[in-house]
Amino acid sequence: MGEFELIARHFAEPARALATPAVAVGIGDDCAVLQPAPGAQLLVSCDVLVEGRHFVPGTDAYRLGHKCLAVSLSDLAACGAAPLGFVLSLTLPHADEAWLAAFSKGMLALARASDCPLVGGDTAKGPLAINVTVFGQIPQGQALLRSGARVGHDVFVTGAIGEARAGLQLLQQRWSLANEALCAHLLRRLEAPTPRLAVGHHLRGVASSAIDLSDGLCGDIGHILKASGVGARIDGAALLQTAPRLWMASELDAMSEAERIAFAMAGGDDYELLFTAHPGFRSYLTELGQELGVAITRIGEVTEGDALIVQDARGEPVPLSAASFDHFA
Amino acid sequence: MGEFELIARHFAEPARALATPAVAVGIGDDCAVLQPAPGAQLLVSCDVLVEGRHFVPGTDAYRLGHKCLAVSLSDLAACGAAPLGFVLSLTLPHADEAWLAAFSKGMLALARASDCPLVGGDTAKGPLAINVTVFGQIPQGQALLRSGARVGHDVFVTGAIGEARAGLQLLQQRWSLANEALCAHLLRRLEAPTPRLAVGHHLRGVASSAIDLSDGLCGDIGHILKASGVGARIDGAALLQTAPRLWMASELDAMSEAERIAFAMAGGDDYELLFTAHPGFRSYLTELGQELGVAITRIGEVTEGDALIVQDARGEPVPLSAASFDHFA
Repeated sequence: MGEFELIARHFAEPARALATPAVAVGIGDDCAVLQPAPGAQLLVSCDVLVEGRHFVPGTDAYRLGHKCLAVSLSDLAACGAAPLGFVLSLTLPHADEAWLAAFSKGMLALARASDCPLVGGDTAKGPLAINVTVFGQIPQGQALLRSGARVGHDVFVTGAIGEARAGLQLLQQRWSLANEALCAHLLRRLEAPTPRLAVGHHLRGVASSAIDLSDGLCGDIGHILKASGVGARIDGAALLQTAPRLWMASELDAMSEAERIAFAMAGGDDYELLFTAHPGFRSYLTELGQELGVAITRIGEVTEGDALIVQDARGEPVPLSAASFDHFA
Repeated sequence: MGEFELIARHFAEPARALATPAVAVGIGDDCAVLQPAPGAQLLVSCDVLVEGRHFVPGTDAYRLGHKCLAVSLSDLAACGAAPLGFVLSLTLPHADEAWLAAFSKGMLALARASDCPLVGGDTAKGPLAINVTVFGQIPQGQALLRSGARVGHDVFVTGAIGEARAGLQLLQQRWSLANEALCAHLLRRLEAPTPRLAVGHHLRGVASSAIDLSDGLCGDIGHILKASGVGARIDGAALLQTAPRLWMASELDAMSEAERIAFAMAGGDDYELLFTAHPGFRSYLTELGQELGVAITRIGEVTEGDALIVQDARGEPVPLSAASFDHFA
């Protein structure tokens, strides 16, 4: 089966069925043509996932398809944007039909759920790598940026922090947990993260800064602190309380509180949102989390200076080991 | 040097200097934020170039950087769009500073010349592959598509067709030409094609269909014929006259007219535009070509049916060998 047929069968035909009214011309011309809302600003983000680097060979193709789109949608969520569409460029060592069928199903299921149609792409023979570029839109001037955190604002996270890293520990057989349901949950958190688009949308006009947690909280909050010219104090105990299912596992009893906090601070791949907001939004945010079914937890506050201080339950500073994951370190 | 420093030095810092007024937020946040013109439609295209597949190891890095952006800009040109910006995702086996410096210079020089700023990207360790996604804009409903060719319209090409394939013959040492200036020209045509953005812009409201020549005229015109539900008759002699420098080379005297025509029909990588237009535009297009300094040559006409017929100077049909290049054939 040739390149064009392969793309048509697994991507182009199902993608056409998902096109939204914003898609004036979808797959099949030199360019896709999209119609943003009047006056909207366009948001763009791209991510590449490489086999052996971002995922292990043999990763479930359906989940991989989901994740490759999810990580880019997560960037839109962090800016508060609504998805418009995405393009996919795929390098594949060979045209494995079963793999492509599962991969495209996983990717397009999330595309449908997120109103983010596939509008174009490219395919080539080569080592397995998946490139996704997503486009979103937002009313002018409303994009959430990294640069708006102010001293005295609260620091919040969505969801359970550290669970994806725990999933990686399981996958790499560094950890072994008896609770099979927990293991399945943690692996799912690593392999099929949920982009927090609805939360991001409701943070327009609320969050003073935002970022998604891809490389680890320690490094990612660092981007906000640098861009905003501020420091932060993180309450490690509050951070651990975001992931009660994880820390109840008896196999982890040997880990000290400081070790748990350092683990959660350095865990990548959660694809939750980290954001800052004026303290006046506390009750609004609690209600928002309940309404959307996503925990929104206050884990600290923005401080003067440029230091990131992480404290344990007694207020003692926790030493943090390696920061975020650097692909060329 | 870490990933972030590497990107900053060779891409982010020089890119910031190139930002246009349309870039509300460039590199350095979760998403880039672009401001399209009021009411504009957004055009998107992406291309991946893989080492060993689309270019040979050791390809000049400056030219490679140019080409990786040029092939995507060529898609915008084929739609008549004006560039807004692009994102780059790069997988590299290692962080070779000299290579990155040259590659980024080549890419960003074309970005500057095309008013197409780099607004974001991603980098990972892996086999060398370059992904570019470009965004353009055009007033609503004016994008040139593949589907508008009508019976009786003329078929035109820009530039010299077949020169890039000749460059590939030289590179692969299948051909040897004594004329060094010609060799340098042909290699440049292969390795550093010029996206025909100005021509495309002026074809708005003029061309009834358009495509860029990436995989070869034979396959590329086939996309127009299929999308428009028409056939075409191509004048092979007119096609050869687009590339007089090439066909004057005495080493090629042994090639018959039919062989030359088949060569030009199947040559990829020219990144010229192929378009159709009402015959009433003939003199307009001749003047346009002179004004822009780009040859615009009538090479045939749109016919009823669905056949592609290529004729030699005597009107005899030329048998065409393999069609366009299929990456998974």
